[in-house]
Amino acid sequence: MSMDVSTDVHAAWLPPEAFRALGSHRVLVQGDGPQGVTVYEEVAQACAAYGGRVGRAPGDEAGPYDLVFALTGAEPALPEAAAVLAGGGVGALGDEGFLTARRDGVTVVLADAPAGLLYGLFHVVRLGEAAFGGGDAPAEAHRPAMRTRMLDHWDNLDVHPVMGHVERGYSGGSIFWRDGGPRGDLPRVRAYARLLAATGVNAVSVNNVNVHTAETRLLTERLGDVADLADVFRPYGIRLHLSVNFASPVVLGGLPTADPLDGDVRAWWGKAAARVYEAIPDFGGFVVKADSEGQPGPFTYGRSHADGANMLAEALAPFGGEVHWRAFVYNHTQDWRDRSTDRARAAYDHFAPLDGAFHPNVVLQVKHGPMDFQTREPVSPVIAAMPATRLAVELQVTQEYTGQQRHVCYLGPMWSEVLGFRPWGADSEGRTVAALAADPAAGGGLVAVSNVGDDPYWTGHPLAQANLYAFGRLAWAPHSDPAALLDEWIDLTFVPLLSRDPVPLRRALHAMMDGSWHTYERYTAPLGVGFMVRPGHHYGPDVDGYEYTPWGTYHYADRDGIGVDRTRATGTGYTGQYPQPWSAVYESAERCPDELLLFFHHVPYGHVLQSGSTVIQHIYDTHFAGAEEAAGQRSSWQELAGSGLVDAALHARVLERLDEQVRCAQEWRDQVNAYFLRKSGVRDARGRHIP
Amino acid sequence: MSMDVSTDVHAAWLPPEAFRALGSHRVLVQGDGPQGVTVYEEVAQACAAYGGRVGRAPGDEAGPYDLVFALTGAEPALPEAAAVLAGGGVGALGDEGFLTARRDGVTVVLADAPAGLLYGLFHVVRLGEAAFGGGDAPAEAHRPAMRTRMLDHWDNLDVHPVMGHVERGYSGGSIFWRDGGPRGDLPRVRAYARLLAATGVNAVSVNNVNVHTAETRLLTERLGDVADLADVFRPYGIRLHLSVNFASPVVLGGLPTADPLDGDVRAWWGKAAARVYEAIPDFGGFVVKADSEGQPGPFTYGRSHADGANMLAEALAPFGGEVHWRAFVYNHTQDWRDRSTDRARAAYDHFAPLDGAFHPNVVLQVKHGPMDFQTREPVSPVIAAMPATRLAVELQVTQEYTGQQRHVCYLGPMWSEVLGFRPWGADSEGRTVAALAADPAAGGGLVAVSNVGDDPYWTGHPLAQANLYAFGRLAWAPHSDPAALLDEWIDLTFVPLLSRDPVPLRRALHAMMDGSWHTYERYTAPLGVGFMVRPGHHYGPDVDGYEYTPWGTYHYADRDGIGVDRTRATGTGYTGQYPQPWSAVYESAERCPDELLLFFHHVPYGHVLQSGSTVIQHIYDTHFAGAEEAAGQRSSWQELAGSGLVDAALHARVLERLDEQVRCAQEWRDQVNAYFLRKSGVRDARGRHIP
Repeated sequence: MSMDVSTDVHAAWLPPEAFRALGSHRVLVQGDGPQGVTVYEEVAQACAAYGGRVGRAPGDEAGPYDLVFALTGAEPALPEAAAVLAGGGVGALGDEGFLTARRDGVTVVLADAPAGLLYGLFHVVRLGEAAFGGGDAPAEAHRPAMRTRMLDHWDNLDVHPVMGHVERGYSGGSIFWRDGGPRGDLPRVRAYARLLAATGVNAVSVNNVNVHTAETRLLTERLGDVADLADVFRPYGIRLHLSVNFASPVVLGGLPTADPLDGDVRAWWGKAAARVYEAIPDFGGFVVKADSEGQPGPFTYGRSHADGANMLAEALAPFGGEVHWRAFVYNHTQDWRDRSTDRARAAYDHFAPLDGAFHPNVVLQVKHGPMDFQTREPVSPVIAAMPATRLAVELQVTQEYTGQQRHVCYLGPMWSEVLGFRPWGADSEGRTVAALAADPAAGGGLVAVSNVGDDPYWTGHPLAQANLYAFGRLAWAPHSDPAALLDEWIDLTFVPLLSRDPVPLRRALHAMMDGSWHTYERYTAPLGVGFMVRPGHHYGPDVDGYEYTPWGTYHYADRDGIGVDRTRATGTGYTGQYPQPWSAVYESAERCPDELLLFFHHVPYGHVLQSGSTVIQHIYDTHFAGAEEAAGQRSSWQELAGSGLVDAALHARVLERLDEQVRCAQEWRDQVNAYFLRKSGVRDARGRHIP
Repeated sequence: MSMDVSTDVHAAWLPPEAFRALGSHRVLVQGDGPQGVTVYEEVAQACAAYGGRVGRAPGDEAGPYDLVFALTGAEPALPEAAAVLAGGGVGALGDEGFLTARRDGVTVVLADAPAGLLYGLFHVVRLGEAAFGGGDAPAEAHRPAMRTRMLDHWDNLDVHPVMGHVERGYSGGSIFWRDGGPRGDLPRVRAYARLLAATGVNAVSVNNVNVHTAETRLLTERLGDVADLADVFRPYGIRLHLSVNFASPVVLGGLPTADPLDGDVRAWWGKAAARVYEAIPDFGGFVVKADSEGQPGPFTYGRSHADGANMLAEALAPFGGEVHWRAFVYNHTQDWRDRSTDRARAAYDHFAPLDGAFHPNVVLQVKHGPMDFQTREPVSPVIAAMPATRLAVELQVTQEYTGQQRHVCYLGPMWSEVLGFRPWGADSEGRTVAALAADPAAGGGLVAVSNVGDDPYWTGHPLAQANLYAFGRLAWAPHSDPAALLDEWIDLTFVPLLSRDPVPLRRALHAMMDGSWHTYERYTAPLGVGFMVRPGHHYGPDVDGYEYTPWGTYHYADRDGIGVDRTRATGTGYTGQYPQPWSAVYESAERCPDELLLFFHHVPYGHVLQSGSTVIQHIYDTHFAGAEEAAGQRSSWQELAGSGLVDAALHARVLERLDEQVRCAQEWRDQVNAYFLRKSGVRDARGRHIP
């Protein structure tokens, strides 16, 4: 594996060798603006490495050309490009789209705007030699499904005494901040921006949604530091966002209130926004976690979340900025004795009544499930409940509840399921979660919490890079096959090695990773019930860890059964937040999908699943199987040692993580099985040892 | 309540008013050395406040005297003192003993050494006017039962990222250290020394037994800071000790090993000890936690704990120093699946075979129970197993597992039970735990972990001062009635208020505190099973918190029953570590005392206790009762508000703690009851609501 020389970190899915095909050809780059310059520089660097040539004009000495990047608005540079344009039929490409075609031996990439050329460039990189072979190919348009494809960093400026440098970060410190100020490693930020652009990401928020004191000042005193980052992201088509503290007018402005209907407060935010746009003309906007887990918000002043969001929206509107207002609002001081309060209901109960009340530049950012990024959750009912609101779906690339980058857990398949979910059932052609978030008029996009830190491999576990990659690619094209994206990631990341003997490594990696989410699910909390993790850090098993806490995350296991009754008939009524058919499907213990049964129903241990197994036997079987699969992953990886297919340092890093995963999976297996054996008294039908 | 002006902290049990009787009389002080000076100064201060007179010689102007403090070795100062001496019959008083008598209207306090006069002084303070009334009284000798009466501070030099400034401290920061160096508030240290001397404490260790990097250097570079503290403790008869890092020869000395049999290592320690005694001629010695919870120790080098302790003992012997070697050694990375390993066995298994192998200046410091300062434990079998070893019994004044100074929990009765326990049964006259620790030839004494910090009330919860007081008094006189000590503490501490209207306040405090240990026991872990606390910080309930961890602290509850089988017949064999009759008593589920049943036996929920209740009903009953009692304590205290009997600040502080105690007790009640209802399926026979 090669390391990026400039920053001494792993090259991830952009090793120099990935540019071999591109860099071996004669390339014409006609583009302007920061992203146009980036395309030219990328091509020039590739050509310098692999013997190709890059030119700016049709007639210059670098020609004749095999590949041309050109803007549609300009005079066609080459006849082949002109011919593609004249062919028409693909319609407007938009700010970020591009088309590819092949005509008379020339590969053509056209875009309406420079950012489109940038995405076209990385498309050509992915294609490799295939971009240059064969006869004429008709124009093929590529447009991102999601308008906003965003990564939120939960980075603190300094090491927080409890939450660390990056909240829920498992890859070292922040790449942006250190010791309360900028980290100063802009080449690394640029390398990150480049990696993100190659996946299609176009927005980044650079600080934690829990905005502590120092971070609050990014909006004012530290704005220069933010502008420096924006300058680095801009050439890669990425707009920068800030998480802001709703109480900023009090904390920074010295006002007596942060009431969103107060005139002085509104004026303060207006001035703050103006200052930001003076420094960063293409600033993306604000991310806000309000009235959640202790963060301030409009509730303090008896105002609604629409009041709060709209106030910020008005401040940003003159400059084209947007507010990402998070819907993660719930009572985190719930009484565990009170079974009528249901955290799963909270986002819908808070926000569905506000549908239509938000300004057009407010994006309501909704976690994909109703709880908190569990390994398995139903899709949040909020997503189907707010047709007059722009919605962004929030995923979690950082593996807070899915192994914390110590476990292999490729999340592409989970996200793919979420994005492909049809809230109105199979017949509702087109109305998937992805379509709702992608709606060109109303959609807000796809957002995820980043898993990147200052670790040399970016993501701690080298294989966790695949999650970052898949997120960007799914945000661009939500109905991509996650298994194909995995292979795409493998082929790019390991290209230097694959060129030698591709099959065993690709096969081994694919086998280890493709089903790894299901493996992780098998050895952790069963049947959608969630949590059962150690409180606080959320790593490893603790079946009752959250059972008697104020966090609203319970399983209610007793000697007879387990699960949360969220039915309308006898439970919290949460099933009623879904439209049909899901409302009825989830309501029924017989029809509810097995993998979500305990999320919706409290059932006896002897309840027979659709799979034919009982709940208790399913618990035993999946936990034995999951731990065994984890051990199998390790064996596969061990077999690669000494093969020369993977470099020694990366092999060792992954193996160290696999050792921990195998240990932890066995711990999950034994704790969960022992807990339920002690509680149910039902022995394993297969007679295996349960401690 | 009065505050000590010099240090702006609460006067605890030495308010100026406690010296009223003493200070109203004419007092002759004949004593020398630092403690003799202290006696003179204390008396002078009291007389200045209350109109008495103090003198140094029989004939001086302060006389004639009502009270005389004199050394037995000197020429009798007053005829009354000479008469008492001539009376004889009390034998040698020793370094710390004193005698009191009254002859011809003069109260006489005599001692062989100045420290004895100091303890006599505080005895007179406790007596108040009673010291001066009545006719002649015969000589009455007072000698401390325990040679060493020691408080161990688990203070770090700086705030430890996980354990805080004072490990298991609930009273603010260290009174000795701050920011990695001395705190510099020597008047406060002196006030502390004075309080301790008044209880009879004569030894203090000033740093955490978990010796981190900075603390390791107290032995060398920071020795001057230690000497400064020793100078402050000396006038109150308290010898200073240090916790040392067994790996010091490596960490500080740059040696390649800390092997206790290595010549260079032994030479290093010898020199280190010599340097310490140069700076502090009356230095007490070292406290060592070795091979425990990650601390280094002789096991690293394949040596025994006798090897380790004896090496340090040899270094200290030339100077009269002692090694306090802690017996708290166990496997803290135990596999919870392994039911044959029993942490309770560990200290005995490690140390009993070493009986007789320790040098005479080694004191083996044994926690009073086999586990870790739980609310209820059996007495450690180590205490009866090492007749040829000097043993100190270690108690925990700081309320790690007993409410963390947020709950009222007067521990005097618990310690009294421990000290009065007869390992060989009721017939073994005199052979109590106290007697073993007090044995004048072999005994090591009584040690406790301090509950003091830089809180204005010293102990966070003002009523937790009573534990510190009772500890010192029990170390001096182990068979004191803890209820009487409580009253003694109340009478001294609240004397300014009691003089107004003593009865309601004394009655209320006594009622709140005397049974508070049992109250705390009722609402926490049942029947001696222990733990069930939140892991890490150990506060509040988490029934399964330690159940699947490596710490060796399990309850093994399943749907049928609960408890740890430590019998010889079917369990870990731990009962065999006790001599008869306890070995047989504990072995029998029928004879085992109820309060320890689940420590020794795994029994069904329907098991009938000696009390006649079943285990499950006992759990419900005690948890309802305990929470109710806590609420009753709060009501009693609330009734005192506005009575003027307690000052407002102290009342508010205690009330705030009681609020938390009541909340937490209800949380314990509900979590424990809900847990066992869910698990057992047995409903409360009295039909009370269990959530």
